[in-house]
Amino acid sequence: MPLDCALVKNKIPPATVKRLPIYLNCLGNIPKGSQRLSSTKLAELAKVKPAQVRRDLSYLGTLGTRGVGYEISTLRSQLRIELGLGQGWNAVIVGAGNLGTALAQYRGFEEKGFVIVGLYDTDEKKISSKITGLTVRPVEKIKEDFKSLPVAIGIIATPAEFAQETAINLVDAGVKSILNFAPIRIDNIGDVQTRNVDLSQELQVLSYYLDRDL
Amino acid sequence: MPLDCALVKNKIPPATVKRLPIYLNCLGNIPKGSQRLSSTKLAELAKVKPAQVRRDLSYLGTLGTRGVGYEISTLRSQLRIELGLGQGWNAVIVGAGNLGTALAQYRGFEEKGFVIVGLYDTDEKKISSKITGLTVRPVEKIKEDFKSLPVAIGIIATPAEFAQETAINLVDAGVKSILNFAPIRIDNIGDVQTRNVDLSQELQVLSYYLDRDL
Repeated sequence: MPLDCALVKNKIPPATVKRLPIYLNCLGNIPKGSQRLSSTKLAELAKVKPAQVRRDLSYLGTLGTRGVGYEISTLRSQLRIELGLGQGWNAVIVGAGNLGTALAQYRGFEEKGFVIVGLYDTDEKKISSKITGLTVRPVEKIKEDFKSLPVAIGIIATPAEFAQETAINLVDAGVKSILNFAPIRIDNIGDVQTRNVDLSQELQVLSYYLDRDL
Repeated sequence: MPLDCALVKNKIPPATVKRLPIYLNCLGNIPKGSQRLSSTKLAELAKVKPAQVRRDLSYLGTLGTRGVGYEISTLRSQLRIELGLGQGWNAVIVGAGNLGTALAQYRGFEEKGFVIVGLYDTDEKKISSKITGLTVRPVEKIKEDFKSLPVAIGIIATPAEFAQETAINLVDAGVKSILNFAPIRIDNIGDVQTRNVDLSQELQVLSYYLDRDL
């Protein structure tokens, strides 16, 4: 199937959208030289059922062939196109503490096409310091800065008590999406998509299995 | 339904297990004073379908009443019991860089019953320094330390290239579960449950919606 077909983008159910990055991540770990991958193997890597993989990937077009599997490089391109990756979304991080600094340094973002273009804080001791090539700027400058460099995604790495007001400021300055790492839920503000990352979520999943000794 | 019933623990499908911490997290944001919550409202907060909520929570017992909803405090207890939370799992973090430090300081872990009892690194400059009350110890001491204080969960916050060897060392020292924050997948080692946290995963979901301007 020519890749162009993928440009006719369908609306994909939210639960499937959430799994697409997991599939893409799994493909990154396939040994070099492999050309094809079965839905069963991908399901095993992604820890979902094979039928789920086949249903999810059917939204991308009819890529898989029974008994032969998916062509890995095509599937990878298809996933990247569907996820809108590779066009270099600009993002900023608010909060230059350990978490914000770790996120600014996180190698996985750039690999996936996210460019961290700004790092903001309220702490005078942090402002003007350099972290991985970025100069920490005062949060009051967000709106002004965004006029010269449009930013699609605001990443919140502040303490919980400042997360909501930070989100409102980011939306006011024009971001289209918010990714919140503060340990408090932020709901969608206006039309802006918000995702909350609960760093303890996977620990809780592990706890379930620990408790049952499975 | 008496809470005791929940102690008869059923095996819950992995996909449901993954959603239980999300429901618990959503309950944490309900305004104080609320007593009941409908599956529709919980579904909206958790961004899944109401039928999914009802199916998932049916594994916990028949808590919901049609037209009345779930009793919030019972549901919260039930979720905590099912997830094996509240019994204080000991965990250690390997890697005392920005990410490891941020995780050691992350308030959400202790709230959910995870106690960080150790922080390890290979960098001599970091060893013996104190981070939120923990003294950074050399990684070579992991096995010895675990003899006096059993540790259930190993959290990996090392650079990608050291993640696999760290996982093997942690398993050798006796952990039952591994939570990997390094930007590389680690698969299950022996019988040990491994979860990989991809910090860019939610950014990719946002990218999907940004790309479609939904």
